[in-house]
Amino acid sequence: MFMRQIKLVIEYEGTNYHGWQIQPHVRTIQEEISKKISQMTGEQVTLLGAGRTDAGVHAWGQVACFQTNSRIPLEGFYRGLNSLLPPDIVIKSVEEVAENFHPQFSARSKIYQYVILNQKVPSAIHRHFSWHIPCPLDVSAMQKAADCLVGRKNFSSFQAADDEPTDPVREILRAQWIVREEVFLDFFIEADGFLKHMVRNIVGTLVDVGRGKISVADFQEILEAKDRRRAGRTAPPQGLFLVAIKYD
Amino acid sequence: MFMRQIKLVIEYEGTNYHGWQIQPHVRTIQEEISKKISQMTGEQVTLLGAGRTDAGVHAWGQVACFQTNSRIPLEGFYRGLNSLLPPDIVIKSVEEVAENFHPQFSARSKIYQYVILNQKVPSAIHRHFSWHIPCPLDVSAMQKAADCLVGRKNFSSFQAADDEPTDPVREILRAQWIVREEVFLDFFIEADGFLKHMVRNIVGTLVDVGRGKISVADFQEILEAKDRRRAGRTAPPQGLFLVAIKYD
Repeated sequence: MFMRQIKLVIEYEGTNYHGWQIQPHVRTIQEEISKKISQMTGEQVTLLGAGRTDAGVHAWGQVACFQTNSRIPLEGFYRGLNSLLPPDIVIKSVEEVAENFHPQFSARSKIYQYVILNQKVPSAIHRHFSWHIPCPLDVSAMQKAADCLVGRKNFSSFQAADDEPTDPVREILRAQWIVREEVFLDFFIEADGFLKHMVRNIVGTLVDVGRGKISVADFQEILEAKDRRRAGRTAPPQGLFLVAIKYD
Repeated sequence: MFMRQIKLVIEYEGTNYHGWQIQPHVRTIQEEISKKISQMTGEQVTLLGAGRTDAGVHAWGQVACFQTNSRIPLEGFYRGLNSLLPPDIVIKSVEEVAENFHPQFSARSKIYQYVILNQKVPSAIHRHFSWHIPCPLDVSAMQKAADCLVGRKNFSSFQAADDEPTDPVREILRAQWIVREEVFLDFFIEADGFLKHMVRNIVGTLVDVGRGKISVADFQEILEAKDRRRAGRTAPPQGLFLVAIKYD
């Protein structure tokens, strides 16, 4: 049977969605795109994403795949989907991939960015795209703590309490704070995979280090405790961006 | 009579407003803030802005003043207004100024920023904060044309057709394109004042230079023609930011 697998790279603003994953009675990004593909192909479609994002979380480069019998050319999907989709979801590229390609399991690594706005006054313009922290943060301590994360480790301490049981070992390849325009702190984290809420739990706990509430040694201890109750608060969703998925 | 004059510096996202200026039957930023001041002081209030911004235009630092008999401390206005206002309007600072201070007439200069997103694909995340131009732009030609603007000149060619009759001479102190993160073109323009739609008409015409539709010499001629019909299209509002008002 003639069957093509199509890979999409997708940018979205998560503000007005209940996250990526289809759920009953709420607007989700997966459903929005699936509906438009079905509208174009006349087929029922299963759109597989590289990973879920929570309500309010954004993506610069989410990846998703679907299979189709349609002969619509790639450029046709690119133009058609972008004209059908609302402007807070943009298809950045469309390509045909091998049948055995899987957006999640073929991924070598994923990169997230978390944006903190560190100044006294909140921002009207950046409110949906950052976590506003008015008190001073010690970025150099936050970087020292982040350095503890790099490597192949058990990240149970940063896993959501309600996450399904899963192997909590992940390999973190990069965990770096970058100061931008003096007031923004961008945290870039790359790993072979992430547990539920892992980035937001890590950022919440790193902010405790930055505020001097806990030390770098405490952070290391929390990581080694493998106990979610030890970590800090979950950072709010609107500062989080799924940057890219890397494949071989 | 005891009367204080209070100066506000205001950041706002203009997306959901019909601009700064109070008008019947629509939501405006001036009205939104005026209502909250009245709610705090129990007085009727006249809030004078340094300049109008159109629907969809943003401000990093709009300035506005009001007079009051209330004894509410400055910190009280800062906290009170920020807790009453919707999150797309933020009061960045509150200070008391002399009675003869006027936000518009005391201004030495105003600075605007216009943001172009110059890449093939549109952006979901930046859609309310930039003008997306998918074709290549010659930034060096756009800068040469912008250089023609600097100085004390008649800007009739860039005045909105429906603007009220006014002296069209303004002094431009700076007109500079800066490339940011490879894909953003930021245009910064500072002048002692601006005509209606002047920045957007200038940017629209500079983009014609960048696309090669007209030459730098053509741009110079359009400026000298003092004729609105000669200039290019008005750039869309969502790329425009009122950055700051400078006072002596």
